[in-house]
Amino acid sequence: MKKDQINALLAPSSIAIIGASATPGKIGYTVIKNLLDSKYSGNIYPVNPKDDEIQGLKNYKTLAEIPGEVEAAVIVVPAKFVSDVIDECGKKGIKGLIIITSGFSEVGDKALELEIVSKAHSYGMRILGPNIVGTLTNSTKLNASFAPYLPLPGKASLITQSGALLIAIDAISYTRGVGFEKLISIGNMSDVDFADLITWLDDDPNTSCISLYVEGFKDGRRFIEAVQKTNKPVIALKSGVSAHGAAAAASHTGSLAGSGKVYDAAFMQAGALRASDLNNLFDRTLALSLQPTMKGDNMLVLTNGGGVGVLATDAAEKYGVPLKFAPEDVQVELKKHMPDFGSAKNPVDMTGMAGTDWYYKTTLFSYGHKWVDGLVVLYCETAQTNPEEIAKSIRKAVDESGVKGKPITVSFVGGERSDKAMRWLVEQGVPAYNAPDLAVNAMAALREFHLLREMVGHKPRGTNLLDDKIARTIIAKARKEGRGALTEIESKQVFEAYGLPTAKTILSTTEEEAVSQAKKIGFPVVMKIVSPDILHKSDAGGVKVNIKDEAGVREAYNTILANALKYKATANIHGIAIQEMAPWGTETIIGSVNDATFGPTVMFGLGGIFVEVLKDVTFRVAPISESQAVKMLGEIRGAPILAGARGEAPRDRKALADVLSKYAAMIHELGDEIAETDANPVLVYEEGKGLKVVDARIILKTK
Amino acid sequence: MKKDQINALLAPSSIAIIGASATPGKIGYTVIKNLLDSKYSGNIYPVNPKDDEIQGLKNYKTLAEIPGEVEAAVIVVPAKFVSDVIDECGKKGIKGLIIITSGFSEVGDKALELEIVSKAHSYGMRILGPNIVGTLTNSTKLNASFAPYLPLPGKASLITQSGALLIAIDAISYTRGVGFEKLISIGNMSDVDFADLITWLDDDPNTSCISLYVEGFKDGRRFIEAVQKTNKPVIALKSGVSAHGAAAAASHTGSLAGSGKVYDAAFMQAGALRASDLNNLFDRTLALSLQPTMKGDNMLVLTNGGGVGVLATDAAEKYGVPLKFAPEDVQVELKKHMPDFGSAKNPVDMTGMAGTDWYYKTTLFSYGHKWVDGLVVLYCETAQTNPEEIAKSIRKAVDESGVKGKPITVSFVGGERSDKAMRWLVEQGVPAYNAPDLAVNAMAALREFHLLREMVGHKPRGTNLLDDKIARTIIAKARKEGRGALTEIESKQVFEAYGLPTAKTILSTTEEEAVSQAKKIGFPVVMKIVSPDILHKSDAGGVKVNIKDEAGVREAYNTILANALKYKATANIHGIAIQEMAPWGTETIIGSVNDATFGPTVMFGLGGIFVEVLKDVTFRVAPISESQAVKMLGEIRGAPILAGARGEAPRDRKALADVLSKYAAMIHELGDEIAETDANPVLVYEEGKGLKVVDARIILKTK
Repeated sequence: MKKDQINALLAPSSIAIIGASATPGKIGYTVIKNLLDSKYSGNIYPVNPKDDEIQGLKNYKTLAEIPGEVEAAVIVVPAKFVSDVIDECGKKGIKGLIIITSGFSEVGDKALELEIVSKAHSYGMRILGPNIVGTLTNSTKLNASFAPYLPLPGKASLITQSGALLIAIDAISYTRGVGFEKLISIGNMSDVDFADLITWLDDDPNTSCISLYVEGFKDGRRFIEAVQKTNKPVIALKSGVSAHGAAAAASHTGSLAGSGKVYDAAFMQAGALRASDLNNLFDRTLALSLQPTMKGDNMLVLTNGGGVGVLATDAAEKYGVPLKFAPEDVQVELKKHMPDFGSAKNPVDMTGMAGTDWYYKTTLFSYGHKWVDGLVVLYCETAQTNPEEIAKSIRKAVDESGVKGKPITVSFVGGERSDKAMRWLVEQGVPAYNAPDLAVNAMAALREFHLLREMVGHKPRGTNLLDDKIARTIIAKARKEGRGALTEIESKQVFEAYGLPTAKTILSTTEEEAVSQAKKIGFPVVMKIVSPDILHKSDAGGVKVNIKDEAGVREAYNTILANALKYKATANIHGIAIQEMAPWGTETIIGSVNDATFGPTVMFGLGGIFVEVLKDVTFRVAPISESQAVKMLGEIRGAPILAGARGEAPRDRKALADVLSKYAAMIHELGDEIAETDANPVLVYEEGKGLKVVDARIILKTK
Repeated sequence: MKKDQINALLAPSSIAIIGASATPGKIGYTVIKNLLDSKYSGNIYPVNPKDDEIQGLKNYKTLAEIPGEVEAAVIVVPAKFVSDVIDECGKKGIKGLIIITSGFSEVGDKALELEIVSKAHSYGMRILGPNIVGTLTNSTKLNASFAPYLPLPGKASLITQSGALLIAIDAISYTRGVGFEKLISIGNMSDVDFADLITWLDDDPNTSCISLYVEGFKDGRRFIEAVQKTNKPVIALKSGVSAHGAAAAASHTGSLAGSGKVYDAAFMQAGALRASDLNNLFDRTLALSLQPTMKGDNMLVLTNGGGVGVLATDAAEKYGVPLKFAPEDVQVELKKHMPDFGSAKNPVDMTGMAGTDWYYKTTLFSYGHKWVDGLVVLYCETAQTNPEEIAKSIRKAVDESGVKGKPITVSFVGGERSDKAMRWLVEQGVPAYNAPDLAVNAMAALREFHLLREMVGHKPRGTNLLDDKIARTIIAKARKEGRGALTEIESKQVFEAYGLPTAKTILSTTEEEAVSQAKKIGFPVVMKIVSPDILHKSDAGGVKVNIKDEAGVREAYNTILANALKYKATANIHGIAIQEMAPWGTETIIGSVNDATFGPTVMFGLGGIFVEVLKDVTFRVAPISESQAVKMLGEIRGAPILAGARGEAPRDRKALADVLSKYAAMIHELGDEIAETDANPVLVYEEGKGLKVVDARIILKTK
């Protein structure tokens, strides 16, 4: 993507409005009015076939008439004329098209949308939209939209998939004091998408934080990569989490992949923070746009009220940054600035007697102390204190501390005077909230973002050292036979080719072969039917375990064959697999889906009731780093089992993480061929003793 | 409790301020000023030994000097003088004492606090406090506190254990438009507690909803009973949930009872709604004080913006009232009031083209339709519409529908004009919120409260038909022997006495006895050591299972005895228990604690990893109704196991609920004797086949 094309969309030096109107109320009128009202300094060229002048500006009958260069065009003509307009824009040498017009894919007309994109690209132009409100930039005073005014100035830029929400957020910015540098409506994302804009905003000196309202991505992987490369915090409110694609899943893993779990994983891997709701998006945007991240775990809370202190303590636990008692030296110092019945532990409760002086001194000391990684200052409005003075004393202490790179958040719980004091603090760069849990949530976001970015630095495990030829040969053979899935034996061969430890399994096609292979593997063995027509082997009576000798093998061989034919007389039977009987271990499951939005995605969970009853599984978009794999093992509710619950020895988590990252590398490399996979169960042994994939399934992508 | 005494505290006709002061800034000055400023219509009597006049009021040197009756006294003298002041109050015939003074149990002086309470009671007086801000009532214009003004008038009354929070909430009421009839500071709750005030407020015609900020109860059971008897909604923000008492627990159940789980159960049983944080307390208070409950499951959402519609859909699922598609006739009608590309399903998306007329017509129709149990109207501010007009059209439609008893909540997402429109709606009795999820959360609260109250109507299972003599005889014997716990055999005898099905277990004291009893019970049997000195029988090698014949019994008898003596040579061995070998069933655990705040409390969970790894258990304060027992079975994450997961037959949940309610009745009746109990495992069989308590433990209360 060429940067100057996005530049033309977000920071054009001149702009034409195609479909300009002299009639108030028309969008072609409103956009021109908004450009004028916002005092946009570039050239504005209204274009329509009939007028001579619109709102004091010369109107051009055609684009071609405009003298000199035009960098961007806002298009508001009806959908059916847009394609012709694009030709004219292309001929004029315009670089960026802001298409406000609706009536494309959002009403089902995908063809028209594809047509305008390919036409725009043929001229080297990029499209923002269609079906958008427009785009607004405070620093260049550009309101190229039908939203009524520029938002309150600030350091965050917001990209939204809902145009209606953009207009509301525009108004909200003033009432809640959350400022924005840019508001960008992204509409149908026919061309320019979140990834393009995030990449551009990463270089924008006026943007310190990127906020998103996301309904869904077209290409999830581009989003992940763009966010990973960004140096700025990205905060996403994702709405409409649905079980897309889960209904028709053929594998166990496929049926578990719905409910937004893949989106959850993708945001985490991208290093994007989440917002839980609209207000939380504003709250976290405020914190991330104004404050540095929290580099360690020690959050200190100062308060003048026990009640709000306890609420902050509860919130700290809820949001994952539980309070620890401050060290002795900190307590000794803080004790000086409170009455006897105060507490210097954490929260530091100065009691209702705290005035500006105590707030100043405790803030100065705490903010400057090396133990403190993040400071939360709470104030509960009292009749004896002045919120504005308290705010000033906090600000003064922060300034005089000389400390840089350490976050502070504030909550004033009270009425109008507190609200005013908080507005002032925000203007001074200190995020302030009207409830203690919100200040803690904001600090937790600053901590979480720090941890997310650390993980993003870890390189995913590649497959460049592995050989994919074996796998592709096996898959090609299955496809040639018209099959949509590999057999267990084939699946295991693919797994083995990628270094995954599978229970030794050999195909036998005669009773004698079965006997000799069983002897080779060593008793006891397991025997299973191998047939592309029988996916659920146990249901068909096609599995026998713990076969201890030759006689057993012979008996099992014949029973399984008979059962299989009874189950499905026309089944194509490849033979019977003889498998080593893996010793007992902790049952886990590894699997994958090829997600419509994110592509190959790996899943991990504990087996048995954990997966079947509790759906206790976790996902990552492949490939993954080994540290992500380790994190996955800790994320499931059943994690204590792997750590060695109930007096058992810890499981071999190192080997498991290794296998998980290899598995992810495998499905990533074979992403063009594989739809879903299951390794189920994967038996995990004690530390140092590894693991074993007992059963395997690979479903091919439909081509 | 006598009602007129609480009356004297909350609605006194005359009031003395003991410790009155002529010096601005002193609390004794502020309280008088506040009473005057609020235009309290009763008599105000300042009392101190030196002044003649305070703020234009005659000051009395002593209480006795005051002519005529005085109903209440506000006491602000230092703690050490309070006791003497109470004598004077008693002699004067005062009924209610509002003790603002601090320096009692909150700083460790419990003795002084007990002294003033007993003295007050000796005169028939009740105490609010000490250590409070005071109490404020809008309807009688009473500001008997040092909070600066009466709150914004409204229909909710709030009781808070944090005085600082009261002052902040007082100010917040104006900025957020949440009105209150009363704000009551409850302080140390030396005498009057939440239960007293809730009972009084239930009869208060000016209060429609009771909101609480709770740090902890003294007597949890009184609270539960008071709320159960109340006809008004009670909403509680509980802070400082800690693992009180869990550390030293002797039983399995005891170790799981921390983390506020008992509080969670108690609020649910009381029928009190919870608030998740301070803002949620305001939000839910607004809804519950203004709107009727939601009687069915059908919530309809109207919107002019897809974005806020999707956010509402997500919130509906999150808060437990998932959206269903509206019936065909509703869709057909609503389709008339939107463009073609709108949606009439649910959310009903009228699109950004919706103006006042569509809002009016869709609200009128939806609010009036019988399918709709609750209506949520969303509005996303647009440039073309006027929020005030939209608000009026919603209000008009609600009025004209003629519908009563059906709830409506609203969210306007936008700036100043939207905020103003929402303030107007609230004044009109329609709760309005600045984000769609908040309007949904408010509606969910109206639904949840309805369901909570339904459950409260179900009578708990009593023990009046049971005989507690057997149990008390066994316990008395153990106490006489100086024991703090019953043996397994004794515990099972107690269980049996309350109708709980236990695996048949007989004590044998000789090898011969063991053989004959095993024959009587029938092989196979289990044998276990019975000794008050060996609580962990398996660890001591004191358990043998699946003993199939006489020889086995003899061998086990001697091995167990030897192991036990090796484990503890001085152990007092009662003998060896012979127990029927219960067939396999689903492992569950029932247990109890005698909670410091709530008394006997029953626990239920699935056994094995569910309890040991996932802590997947649920609690209820005993006794419980059978419907509460049924609800408990469905609350645990492992509930699908009981319903028959993984192709197994459903378990006998009916029998399990029956046993659970009997168990709760047992621990309730023996609450004076029993500290903790475990029935673990309790094996539950297929439907109709009942269950069996395999192992039992009863720990006695220390007396």
